[in-house]
Amino acid sequence: MLIVQKFGGTSVGDLERIQNVANRVSKTKKQGNDVVVVVSAMSGETNKLISYAEHFSQTPSRAEMDMLLSSGERVTASLLAIALNEMGHDAVSMTGRKAGIVTDSLHTKARIEEIDPTTMRAALKEGKIIVVAGFQGVSLDGNVTTLGRGGSDLSAVAIAGALEADLCEIYTDVSGIFTTDPRIEPKAKKLEKISYDEMLELASLGAKVLQNRSVELAKKLNVNLVTRTSFSEEEGTLITKEENIMEQPLVSGIALDKNQARISLMGVKDRPGIASEIFNKLAQSEVNVDMIIQNKAHDETTNIDFTVPKGDLHDAKAVVDAFIQTGDIKDDSYNEDICKVSVVGVGMKSHTGVAAKAFSAMASENININMISTSEIKISMVIDEKYAELAVRSLHSIYNLDK
Amino acid sequence: MLIVQKFGGTSVGDLERIQNVANRVSKTKKQGNDVVVVVSAMSGETNKLISYAEHFSQTPSRAEMDMLLSSGERVTASLLAIALNEMGHDAVSMTGRKAGIVTDSLHTKARIEEIDPTTMRAALKEGKIIVVAGFQGVSLDGNVTTLGRGGSDLSAVAIAGALEADLCEIYTDVSGIFTTDPRIEPKAKKLEKISYDEMLELASLGAKVLQNRSVELAKKLNVNLVTRTSFSEEEGTLITKEENIMEQPLVSGIALDKNQARISLMGVKDRPGIASEIFNKLAQSEVNVDMIIQNKAHDETTNIDFTVPKGDLHDAKAVVDAFIQTGDIKDDSYNEDICKVSVVGVGMKSHTGVAAKAFSAMASENININMISTSEIKISMVIDEKYAELAVRSLHSIYNLDK
Repeated sequence: MLIVQKFGGTSVGDLERIQNVANRVSKTKKQGNDVVVVVSAMSGETNKLISYAEHFSQTPSRAEMDMLLSSGERVTASLLAIALNEMGHDAVSMTGRKAGIVTDSLHTKARIEEIDPTTMRAALKEGKIIVVAGFQGVSLDGNVTTLGRGGSDLSAVAIAGALEADLCEIYTDVSGIFTTDPRIEPKAKKLEKISYDEMLELASLGAKVLQNRSVELAKKLNVNLVTRTSFSEEEGTLITKEENIMEQPLVSGIALDKNQARISLMGVKDRPGIASEIFNKLAQSEVNVDMIIQNKAHDETTNIDFTVPKGDLHDAKAVVDAFIQTGDIKDDSYNEDICKVSVVGVGMKSHTGVAAKAFSAMASENININMISTSEIKISMVIDEKYAELAVRSLHSIYNLDK
Repeated sequence: MLIVQKFGGTSVGDLERIQNVANRVSKTKKQGNDVVVVVSAMSGETNKLISYAEHFSQTPSRAEMDMLLSSGERVTASLLAIALNEMGHDAVSMTGRKAGIVTDSLHTKARIEEIDPTTMRAALKEGKIIVVAGFQGVSLDGNVTTLGRGGSDLSAVAIAGALEADLCEIYTDVSGIFTTDPRIEPKAKKLEKISYDEMLELASLGAKVLQNRSVELAKKLNVNLVTRTSFSEEEGTLITKEENIMEQPLVSGIALDKNQARISLMGVKDRPGIASEIFNKLAQSEVNVDMIIQNKAHDETTNIDFTVPKGDLHDAKAVVDAFIQTGDIKDDSYNEDICKVSVVGVGMKSHTGVAAKAFSAMASENININMISTSEIKISMVIDEKYAELAVRSLHSIYNLDK
C-alpha cells in the first residue's frame, strides 16, 4: 500500500515525540508499505514566529509571513528524515516546492492549484521514505506560500490524491471521531467509519478533529482519510465515501455548538426584498448567519429570528441598529444563552421518523426547542444553553449510539 | 551608491537588535543609497538546530542538515523585511534561491558557482530594499545548500560582486581591524584601510574578524569590503586593493598566534626525497604544517624543525614515530610553549630593513628567535610563548603603530 501519514504540531512537539513518529513511520515502512510523511512545525514554533513578527508590525506583509512561517515545517521535516536515516531507512525531506505543491498567490491562505508528483514518484520508486514539510507550497511566480491554519492536513490530503495513495492517515492527539463529545457523554463510542458528508456536518458543528477544507478536499479527490492518535496504537476512524460503508447507521453522531447567539427581529416591515436587504448587509459585515426562521405576525409585519457565532454578535447588532433607525425593523432582542444540538447521519436519507424521535427526546426531558433546521443528513435544534449536555446525552441514548 | 550590508548572528541576536539593524539599514537607504542586506540566523539558532540533529544522529545526512540549517536565515530575513516595511520602506526578503545564488552540490560546505542577479536587479530598480537570507544557495539540481561557517560573509561578498556594489559592509561585534590585539597592546589603533593581502595574512595569523574565504573572494571580485560594528556609529576598516591605498604604510599590523607547537626532528637521514616523504605523510594525515627550517648537522644527517597547530600535534607525532621506527629519523622533540609573532605590511615590498628592525626589537628585549619565515609582506618569528605579549608590544612600538 501507499500510505500518507500526517503528524501535527503536538505529535512532533519535542525531540522524543519526533523519535516516536520515526518509529511509527519505520514500522509502517517495514510492513511493506510505501510511505510519504507530512509534518507540521513543532508545536509552539509557529506561534513564536508570529509573535516575533508582531513585535515589528501589526500588519506584516503576507508574503513575508509565508517566508517566516514556512521555516518551522522545514525543521521538523529534516529532523524526521535524519531520525529515519539513522534507523537504516533511506529517507529524504522535501519542501512544498520540491514536493511539487503549486498554489495560487494568496499568501498566508493560499489554495493548492495542482501537485506535480514527479519528484515524489521518483523517490518512492527508489524505495525512499519521503518527509514533506506541510502547510506550504510555491506560487507560480516562485514564492513560498502557506495554506493557513490546518494547512498541513490539506498538504497531506492533496498529496494522497496526487499520488493516488491507498490511505491518508491524519495523526492528532485524539483517537478518532466519536458519536459525541466524550467529556459530555462518557458512553460515547469511537466510530469505525463515517462518510465525508457526515464528517463535514460534524466538523462544522464543532467537532474540531478535522477542518472542513481537508474533508472537502478528501471527498473531491476520493481520498480515504483516517484520523487517529500518534500516542497509542489504537485504530482511528476512516472517513470515506458512503458507498464504502456497508451498514449505514441511522445516526452517526450528536454534535453540540455552544458558540451561538440568537437574534430576534420584531416588526420587520413586510415589503418585498426586506429580508434580502438585511442578510446582504450582514454578509457585507462578514457576519456568519446560520439558522433563519421567519414567521408572519398578526399586524402585517414579520418576525425574523436567526443565529450567528457569538463573536459576530457585535457586528450583527450594528447592522440591525441601522435598520431600526430607518424604521424598517421595529424592535430587536438578543439571546446568547442558547446552543445548537445536531443529529447527523446518512441513514436519515432513507428513513423516516428520525426527526420525530429527536423531538420526542427533547419533549421527554421538558426541553423547549426554539428553532429547528434540517438537511438531508442533519437535524439541528436551538435550545436553551443550560440544557445542552442533557440534550446531547438524551439524543445519544435515544439513537442507541452507546450500543 | 549601491551598498551591501551584512549582519552576523550577534547583530541580529534578538528582536531589539533586529530593530537596530532595521534602523541602520533605513538610514542608509534614506541617505539615497540602494541597499541589499544579508543576514545570518539569530545567534544560537544554528547551534540549537545542530544539537537537535545530533539528538537523532551523529552522522546526519549533509543534505538534510542544509534543509535544517537554512531555516534560521529565512526567519531573520523575513523579520527584518517586516520591520523595514513597518518603517515605511518597500522591503522584500529573498532566500538564497530567489537571490540567484547557485552553488555546487557539496552540502554543508558548498561553493558559490555563480550568482544570477536578475531578480535582485529588478527589485532594486523598483526601489526595494532586499534582505537576503545569507549562508545558503541552491544547487543546480534544485536542492538548498549551505556555505559552511562564515557563509553569510561569502553570500554578501558574492552578491556585492555580482551587483557590482560600491561597498560591502560586514557588521560584527568588533569595530574594525586593529594594528594588533587591543587586549595585548591598549595603544593599538584601528586601521582606516588595509589591502586584501595584508588582511589575508592577518586573518591567517589569528585576527578572527573575517575568514580568509571571504577576503579571497572580495579580492577576486574586486569588492570593497568594510568591517565595522553594528553596535555604534563608529567607522570601520576598508579592505581594498593596494592601488586604492594612497599612503602605503611600511607595516600595517602585528599578529600573534599562540596556537602553535614546534616539532624538531634530529638526525634525519640525508637521502634524496626524505623531506618530501615526511611532509607528504603529514599532509595525508591532514596535519597543517606552517613554518619549516632545515639545516645540516655535522654528521651527514639533517635536522628539520617545523610548526603545526597544537590540535594537529597528536597526529603529527604518529607520523614522526613511524619514521623513527624505520630509522629514517633518529630522534624527535616537541615544544608547545612557543608562539608566532608576525609583522605584516605591503610597504615591506619596496622597503629594506624592515626585518632587521624586527630582529633588533627582539634583541633589545632579550627575546631569542627560534625560527624565522618571511614572505613579500610578512615576517614571522617563532619565540618562547612567555614573551608573546612583550614581543607584540615591542614590535608595535618600533614600527610606530601607536602614532
